[in-house]
Amino acid sequence: MALAASVTGAFAAPESAAKSKAPLDAVASDPAKLGWMVGSPPPANRILRFDDGSYFQFPALRWSVSNFRQLMPTMNVSRGLGAPVPLPRAERDDIDSVSFTPLGGSQPMTWAQSLPANYTDGIVVLHRGRVVYERYFGVLKEGGQHGLMSVSKSLAGTLGATLVAEGKLDADKRVSEYVPELSRSAFGSATVRQLLDMTTGIRFSEDYADPKAEVWQHAAAGSPLPKPKGYTGPRSYYDFLQTVKPQGRHGEAFGYKTANTDALGWVIARATGRSVAQLLSERIWQRLGAEQDGYYTVDSIGTPFAGGGMNSGLRDLARFGEMLRNDGVFNGQQILPKAAIDDIRQGGDKGNFAKAGYKLLPGWSYRDMWWVTHNEHGAYMARGVHGQALYIDPKAEMVIARFASNPVAGNAANDPTSLPAYHALARYLIATPR
Amino acid sequence: MALAASVTGAFAAPESAAKSKAPLDAVASDPAKLGWMVGSPPPANRILRFDDGSYFQFPALRWSVSNFRQLMPTMNVSRGLGAPVPLPRAERDDIDSVSFTPLGGSQPMTWAQSLPANYTDGIVVLHRGRVVYERYFGVLKEGGQHGLMSVSKSLAGTLGATLVAEGKLDADKRVSEYVPELSRSAFGSATVRQLLDMTTGIRFSEDYADPKAEVWQHAAAGSPLPKPKGYTGPRSYYDFLQTVKPQGRHGEAFGYKTANTDALGWVIARATGRSVAQLLSERIWQRLGAEQDGYYTVDSIGTPFAGGGMNSGLRDLARFGEMLRNDGVFNGQQILPKAAIDDIRQGGDKGNFAKAGYKLLPGWSYRDMWWVTHNEHGAYMARGVHGQALYIDPKAEMVIARFASNPVAGNAANDPTSLPAYHALARYLIATPR
Repeated sequence: MALAASVTGAFAAPESAAKSKAPLDAVASDPAKLGWMVGSPPPANRILRFDDGSYFQFPALRWSVSNFRQLMPTMNVSRGLGAPVPLPRAERDDIDSVSFTPLGGSQPMTWAQSLPANYTDGIVVLHRGRVVYERYFGVLKEGGQHGLMSVSKSLAGTLGATLVAEGKLDADKRVSEYVPELSRSAFGSATVRQLLDMTTGIRFSEDYADPKAEVWQHAAAGSPLPKPKGYTGPRSYYDFLQTVKPQGRHGEAFGYKTANTDALGWVIARATGRSVAQLLSERIWQRLGAEQDGYYTVDSIGTPFAGGGMNSGLRDLARFGEMLRNDGVFNGQQILPKAAIDDIRQGGDKGNFAKAGYKLLPGWSYRDMWWVTHNEHGAYMARGVHGQALYIDPKAEMVIARFASNPVAGNAANDPTSLPAYHALARYLIATPR
Repeated sequence: MALAASVTGAFAAPESAAKSKAPLDAVASDPAKLGWMVGSPPPANRILRFDDGSYFQFPALRWSVSNFRQLMPTMNVSRGLGAPVPLPRAERDDIDSVSFTPLGGSQPMTWAQSLPANYTDGIVVLHRGRVVYERYFGVLKEGGQHGLMSVSKSLAGTLGATLVAEGKLDADKRVSEYVPELSRSAFGSATVRQLLDMTTGIRFSEDYADPKAEVWQHAAAGSPLPKPKGYTGPRSYYDFLQTVKPQGRHGEAFGYKTANTDALGWVIARATGRSVAQLLSERIWQRLGAEQDGYYTVDSIGTPFAGGGMNSGLRDLARFGEMLRNDGVFNGQQILPKAAIDDIRQGGDKGNFAKAGYKLLPGWSYRDMWWVTHNEHGAYMARGVHGQALYIDPKAEMVIARFASNPVAGNAANDPTSLPAYHALARYLIATPR
């Protein structure tokens, strides 16, 4: 059951534990070729189950990230019932040849080469709102849904920033004012702003190598499976959050800890009477002209996993990014207040961020559960384990949505061949408008 | 875990066990008013769980039938990515006043009165392809999905009849020729036709009062939960089907047994390389202009529950019915072969049906997993426990799709106030065309 932890999307450790021995490459680990869960019944060694954890071992996880709903209970994020708003298309094959130098590398790599290097399951690039590039690999199709992992955090953070901009949530209030049950936890004395920026002083280790790390308790609490006999721990995300102990002081450093997002989800639920799943549907998905419903995995009492449980179609994630790029306007409507998006892209405190030690992300910051590059294009991004990304480059008028199933959870494993690729493509699109 | 049996949609016992003591009426048991799973967290006595069976006790089941995916793993039935095809609307309030006499009753009842009498969650009536009536109650909304229960069987039967009409499935072949694993079970020597018409001679009791009834083994095998320690029974629908023993002779009598549909699902999977979920999406849902994805609940190895696991939007179920009413044409396309639909509505052997003793269904028959009335309108219907129905009246050019959560599973509890209501409405629509 503890393997549910793997979907917290929380592996935060910078550049750690990446290269012990080389895993299968993208072609050899192609989940379509390996035939997971194909057949009636599938062969015994191709059956994946949630309860024994087999589903999240590489290379099996390459199937599972596109099929979480077959493994776990879920809550719908309705797109509504109207016609989807098609994304205009203007595809460019020249993008495959865009070249860049991986971080820390010396040999150039092309965009096309970067996709298998990163175990990409699907990628779409919008330029000025038009689809200029779109590819799918393995078992993901344009009509499929893929786990967003911690990109889910940025969705929750966007909802939070929206509520703050609208005055429905007071960022300066303490968490305990919204959720009295958190008064005695480390969260109670933090402000909503500290939650949004993950500068709370909480004890929450995401060191998966440590069986006593809090992330395992979080996962066990959130698992929708029946608890094992003798289990005395928390039985839901809300139960778990009440057990979180303090460590350090609030507001002094960025610490990427999934529990902050689940606490934010709780605050949002209390402030609006809506779960993040319901609010995301009502405020965003139903107004984006999305072409597919999304969904959240849920715990045993129906709480959507705000920190990592969202799944969606790739193009719908791109629609969301394009709406942000356009100051909250999409499909002819002001969907979110510009003030919320301004707050995200202005970024957070760089000093606080630097303390977290992300060597591959120098000069970045974290705000409203978004990663802000502070590069010359003003790019900001949502990031999830195993390579999920939503990258928004305002200057290049570019949005990249990417699903992946890298054998290594931490993004330090794919940043070297993804971040410079994104920036190189942005520069290329500026230089070669069509 | 055994409570999973409740969703087999299999309660077949004619007119049994209906009226021990009066349950709450539709208003008092309204799941929206009772507030199941509302709150962050919901109150302890409003939390419903799959593993303890609380979700399927009345009145809680009134919430659960609209939320199966929050309780269990599921497989998507994609509607595709295009624009839904809107159903034309021509609503008529006069329908509420249509009057009929319940079966076995003496006092007339109006259509409007029949809806709470039947614990209706949602109902839509199409006349000549236009929505003339549509209502939702409790927690079901137009954008929600509801369990079809055994209406799922008619979807599987329609796929089976289609494959037969196309020559992709030979109705005269033995089941063992498609699924050798079933050779030693009672199914092996039955023909595909006997499966489709449920005239197999198999031992499969759906007597829920008997803890040794096979339906409980079926449910335990199909449950997606981990098996309890010491459990030695079958671990999937396919495993269970191989254990089914003979009882009586094939072809001699209709016997409504859910296992037949799961065996048909296996045959279809072997004949097409597609599960019923995949085939339903590809052949029907994606071509209907459906406005929502549907989904199936699945067992622990990802097998969709062909006998009772489909969930859909109400209007999409109506679209499916309207396509059948139009000889397989909908949305400008021949979606299914007319021969398949002709085979359904011609009905099955009335003598075989009579042996099953459904006193409320005199002169009916069962064909391709559809219930055929043989009334003067040529009506035929799909039926699921707790009141699910898809009723197609060719002469009246009428289709009724209905979701419900009657406290009593068997349709004998609602037939008296639904079947004569459908027929009265059909006659009324013929008499008062607009």
